Amino acid sequence: MNPFLNYQSEKNMSMFTDLYELTMCASYFDNNKFEPATFDLFIRRLPENRGYLLFAGLEQVLLYLKSVKFTEEHLAYLKKQGFSSRFLDYLRDFRFTGDVWAVPEGTVAFPCEPLIRVTAPIIEAQLVETFLLNTVNLQTMIATKASRVVHAAKGKAVIEFGLRREHGIDAGMKVARCSYIAGCQGTSNVLAGLAYGIPVFGTMAHSFVMSYEREIDAFRAFAKTFPNKSTLLIDTYDDIAGAEKAAVVAKELEQKGLRLSGVRLDSGDLATISKRVRKLLDEKGLDYVSIFASGDLDEFKIAELLSQGARIDAFGVGTKMGTSADKPYVDVIYKLCETMTADGTSAPIMKLSEGKATLPGRKQVYRFKDADGFYERDVIALADEEVGGEPLLRKVMENGKLTYSLPSLDEIRATAATNLAKLPEKYKQLTAAPEYLVKISPNLSALIRRLRRKLTQNEIRQQRSRVG
Amino acid sequence: MNPFLNYQSEKNMSMFTDLYELTMCASYFDNNKFEPATFDLFIRRLPENRGYLLFAGLEQVLLYLKSVKFTEEHLAYLKKQGFSSRFLDYLRDFRFTGDVWAVPEGTVAFPCEPLIRVTAPIIEAQLVETFLLNTVNLQTMIATKASRVVHAAKGKAVIEFGLRREHGIDAGMKVARCSYIAGCQGTSNVLAGLAYGIPVFGTMAHSFVMSYEREIDAFRAFAKTFPNKSTLLIDTYDDIAGAEKAAVVAKELEQKGLRLSGVRLDSGDLATISKRVRKLLDEKGLDYVSIFASGDLDEFKIAELLSQGARIDAFGVGTKMGTSADKPYVDVIYKLCETMTADGTSAPIMKLSEGKATLPGRKQVYRFKDADGFYERDVIALADEEVGGEPLLRKVMENGKLTYSLPSLDEIRATAATNLAKLPEKYKQLTAAPEYLVKISPNLSALIRRLRRKLTQNEIRQQRSRVG
Repeated sequence: MNPFLNYQSEKNMSMFTDLYELTMCASYFDNNKFEPATFDLFIRRLPENRGYLLFAGLEQVLLYLKSVKFTEEHLAYLKKQGFSSRFLDYLRDFRFTGDVWAVPEGTVAFPCEPLIRVTAPIIEAQLVETFLLNTVNLQTMIATKASRVVHAAKGKAVIEFGLRREHGIDAGMKVARCSYIAGCQGTSNVLAGLAYGIPVFGTMAHSFVMSYEREIDAFRAFAKTFPNKSTLLIDTYDDIAGAEKAAVVAKELEQKGLRLSGVRLDSGDLATISKRVRKLLDEKGLDYVSIFASGDLDEFKIAELLSQGARIDAFGVGTKMGTSADKPYVDVIYKLCETMTADGTSAPIMKLSEGKATLPGRKQVYRFKDADGFYERDVIALADEEVGGEPLLRKVMENGKLTYSLPSLDEIRATAATNLAKLPEKYKQLTAAPEYLVKISPNLSALIRRLRRKLTQNEIRQQRSRVG
Repeated sequence: MNPFLNYQSEKNMSMFTDLYELTMCASYFDNNKFEPATFDLFIRRLPENRGYLLFAGLEQVLLYLKSVKFTEEHLAYLKKQGFSSRFLDYLRDFRFTGDVWAVPEGTVAFPCEPLIRVTAPIIEAQLVETFLLNTVNLQTMIATKASRVVHAAKGKAVIEFGLRREHGIDAGMKVARCSYIAGCQGTSNVLAGLAYGIPVFGTMAHSFVMSYEREIDAFRAFAKTFPNKSTLLIDTYDDIAGAEKAAVVAKELEQKGLRLSGVRLDSGDLATISKRVRKLLDEKGLDYVSIFASGDLDEFKIAELLSQGARIDAFGVGTKMGTSADKPYVDVIYKLCETMTADGTSAPIMKLSEGKATLPGRKQVYRFKDADGFYERDVIALADEEVGGEPLLRKVMENGKLTYSLPSLDEIRATAATNLAKLPEKYKQLTAAPEYLVKISPNLSALIRRLRRKLTQNEIRQQRSRVG
């Protein structure tokens, strides 16, 4: 089954772009610039507290590149925006025909490492920028955040619960996808279950309890409908009183040979309350009833709860994971690194802006492991340079055709788990992780020095003009 | 033209829901609970630094409610999840048939005020919760944030530029929509231009400049394509040297009777650089060339730049507005406030959880103005209570049919501007805004006291059980 049968947000999204991509392309067209260019998509720096990135979003990028085109309705709109008929005729036949190299989803990555490398006629390579950035920003940000939450939970299950506060429909879908890649057990989002095959989980809301005259009536009603898999929300009025009523219902189920699955806590001091609820349930012989906790959780809160000895079996994590609330974006950028002249000579390109310098040329990332197989350091090198290590970028598209067998979501999830296991623990610390070593290769370093000299001669103002 | 011709993300999104909505509904169904219930959608507290909320998202909520239904594919998936055939038969015919009251988009609102009030058979009212929360969270969060940015810009134009870091496709669309409602002049998002009729803006990226051997060649190429509306990005290598080259191109355009529109700065100390660039341009007789600034801007940075005398004519604001980066969610919730028994008696409902108490009964919000027409205070009252003031909630849907003429986006934008003008300045301060007075009416207060007594008797544990 095609996992995208039901939700193909990336299909034919040519107009989902910043206008400047189109104005630049119009000018390239007008000035007969059709030579290939190479762009790197990478993340400039780590968000605060993160020691690594977990890359995600490639599948949607490739589906977009395969399907991007302009309809007559699009062209009519662009005509009204003042684009020339000649350029619109060009767009009518527009397809992406380039080559793409990328690291697989679930790769552990670090700042400045190219994650996707696009080589195509410059108009094609430029036009796709916005979609690529939008897609990788959201998914890599969430995969990274969710992997931290899963790590903090130390093997307890984490369910993605943030649909109501995630940023719109596509975010709701992609957060479920990337949280699952990062190790969450499932999501509350039913459409994500349908579209991506992710396990779905759900209990009940306070409104369900409140809609009944008495709390225990609500518990009994729910247990009637889901006799084998009820998790009862016990904090609507008073958590301990709620736990006592849940225990009554559990005993009623036992008399029918059934078992209550769990109780859920959603407010208050979860460490203290979970211990009291555990004790109450255990004293009644209900040690099999699990305790599920939710309410304003993130990796920091979960780590704190577990360090306080909270008796929680599974966590429902919502808003703070689903919006990456402490840092709701990553510094993902897409930069030109090579052009080609009409005679076929390649010209490496770099940017010098303060704090925004880029790495020139077509590049590859090599990863080196220690004797135990743990990640030790990476080297960013020129694509044709021999430096050893394992190359991370693979060819995924050639002449606009997919040359890569898209892994299933479960395969991506397994890849992420394998890779995260190879990342030494110190880089997974929730705060103050050390910096992973990423070196620049000898040939790339030499190229940077050469280009810096040339740019300084040609484009930087002379000292005297600073005075003006 | 139907503004939703091209991007109707809200159509038939029945499965875009937390699983627990469906499990609760299955249990309501199983227990023959079909009586009407009323839910309030409201925001529990203001995000840090905000002094008010600007409500947005109603149009998408209503389009969702009008179109929500289940397809056979949906039902087949739900069957696999273990829902009973009887319940699935019910869902097959499911339509939303309730009444909805809401405040118009562009309404200035405050915590705990019902923004949308849904009265429907409890299964219908419950099932729609997730979509309503997701939609109002994103749009109200962004409208509020963008209105602060526009306010800080003191009449200078603000363009929404954040597409690449907004959370996926739907966020990219809705951020453009809500930023425009809040007073932005337009967006960089071409699809939002097409779908919503929002003005689109774009200049050029650093890659365009870098794709040419010399910066001035890039400027000339762009000016050739857009002779009447070029804004040249001048900081790729060196902003002052870039401004000098832009001036050369401006003079070349002048010789053809044309004018350079502007230059754009995207890095560095924008206050200092903008003053130097303004001086350089003015000295060359280019006082008509405007200065456009972008790069990590938000309301705080814009206020700081203007207080430093920056010579900036327009701001491009991206990531921090488009993700509401300092607070990427609002505490929007959807709470049961009234049920009806089978004999038609209504029963007001409230929740007591610590810090999460709710207001019972079907309510209306009344706004009082001072002699000059400025907002002075609001009163939350029972719907049938007479307290004076202007009622904010209007009936927008009856028996599942729209009874409200959806305003155009420009009308909503005008409403927002009118309403924001009536909000006293002190509530628009970027930090430390005073708290706007929202009172609870006498009858509502009495109801709360009565319910609290009843709940305490029935559902709260006795003091002795605390010891356990």
